[in-house]
Amino acid sequence: MRHERISIVGLGAMGSALASALLEAGREVTVWNRTPGKAGELVARGAREASSVEEAIGAGGLTVACLLDDASVREALGPALRKPAGGTLVNLTSGSVRQARELAGWLGGYGVRFLAGGIMAVPPTVGTEGSFILYSGARDLFDRVAPVLGPIGRPHWVGEDPGLAALYDMAALSGMYGMGAGADHAVALVHAEGGDVETFKREVLRPWMEQMLPITVAGADVSESVPDEYNPAMQATGLETILSASAEAGVPADLAGHLRSSLWRMQRAVTAG
Amino acid sequence: MRHERISIVGLGAMGSALASALLEAGREVTVWNRTPGKAGELVARGAREASSVEEAIGAGGLTVACLLDDASVREALGPALRKPAGGTLVNLTSGSVRQARELAGWLGGYGVRFLAGGIMAVPPTVGTEGSFILYSGARDLFDRVAPVLGPIGRPHWVGEDPGLAALYDMAALSGMYGMGAGADHAVALVHAEGGDVETFKREVLRPWMEQMLPITVAGADVSESVPDEYNPAMQATGLETILSASAEAGVPADLAGHLRSSLWRMQRAVTAG
Repeated sequence: MRHERISIVGLGAMGSALASALLEAGREVTVWNRTPGKAGELVARGAREASSVEEAIGAGGLTVACLLDDASVREALGPALRKPAGGTLVNLTSGSVRQARELAGWLGGYGVRFLAGGIMAVPPTVGTEGSFILYSGARDLFDRVAPVLGPIGRPHWVGEDPGLAALYDMAALSGMYGMGAGADHAVALVHAEGGDVETFKREVLRPWMEQMLPITVAGADVSESVPDEYNPAMQATGLETILSASAEAGVPADLAGHLRSSLWRMQRAVTAG
Repeated sequence: MRHERISIVGLGAMGSALASALLEAGREVTVWNRTPGKAGELVARGAREASSVEEAIGAGGLTVACLLDDASVREALGPALRKPAGGTLVNLTSGSVRQARELAGWLGGYGVRFLAGGIMAVPPTVGTEGSFILYSGARDLFDRVAPVLGPIGRPHWVGEDPGLAALYDMAALSGMYGMGAGADHAVALVHAEGGDVETFKREVLRPWMEQMLPITVAGADVSESVPDEYNPAMQATGLETILSASAEAGVPADLAGHLRSSLWRMQRAVTAG
């Protein structure tokens, strides 16, 4: 099966990982980066380097942008859009819901078909098992793009609204940062009290978080209610104990923001009855 | 194999779950609760109800305390310790490192052998696969207790210092609360922007957090360094984007404490170079 040529605009850690996974799968890849000198290894592996963003976009049916932020996308693509441009852009740059919706409108004005994406992977896990890519926008466009970009991660369409991929991506990132804030604080506490950090991570923290992850996600809720068996009053007491033990151990208070969020939710549930 | 009789002191949600798992495994169980009326179902399943804490402690070789907090443990056990008491106490009540060490000293003064524990389960997962119990204290005591209490969760000894079980338990709880704070905020954001919360939880949040958990725990660190491929400057920008998008969406700032913790760590890493 012959796939369309793909142009990758932006060769930061993530853009390079995308290009690498596509080359690995035998796709024809053109790359471009604002600052030159990032394409060497990819070119050695068969990528073509474009000398301008216009050339990159002109090279393939499918342009994938993966840049620092929304402003970088507009800045990079602007010069190529002075006249009706056509073509298809898949934007895998992180941004907000509003930015994705506005970008869809802006590109639509130039006749560019647009699919918004969110990469549910970090550069080292791009294309590995478990990684996936959220897409939102026209379903027919997704059906065309999905097999072409399959090698970067399992394609998962979340709806027509171009903002949805960014929304789910950003929200899931927040979930991950919570996990990271909790793990960082846990390790800081064990270290401060003279425990063995590596043993703790391997034998306690990881199996415990793995055990609790499904229950935690299932229990995540926007309401003030907390299920009875969670006992919010007792959890509030427990959270206050961890906060004071943490302060006693000399762990920086800035590392305990997740505990204050959790305490706030439990106290709110207690007040709501 | 005949096991020693076990007395459970405290029939809150957790104490009841412990007694239930032990009865299920055919152990001889005596129960006691300060407020009567909690033992009905357990008695119907074969538990004996003691009418006083002295009777409960006198009934078995092994007493397991699972109460609200450290003060409750001292208050409940005090009356039974007026004279040298002997016996063995396993304390599965949540508390701090210092409380566990002090309790060991206090009980030692009465000739009571003491093992401190931390239950790595919530009441509904007690005794299920994946659940485990941390113990710290004398190794020979652990070796005697482990097979007796096996049905409540895989026994895991973490060291002689009686404070270690509480330390690892509390730290791991903090990790779990981070995961919960992140998941709650993620769901609030999706809800506020009109996304489908249940689809998001099932198809995005859970697989993403499962994918990132091992990397997150492995990367948890007490130093100011953040590995190069994590790009702390870019992560700081991303965190600021999520925080402002969250505020724009009307999500309460109190729910975003984990993001401020993560931002603090990234900014600190950037400053440290």
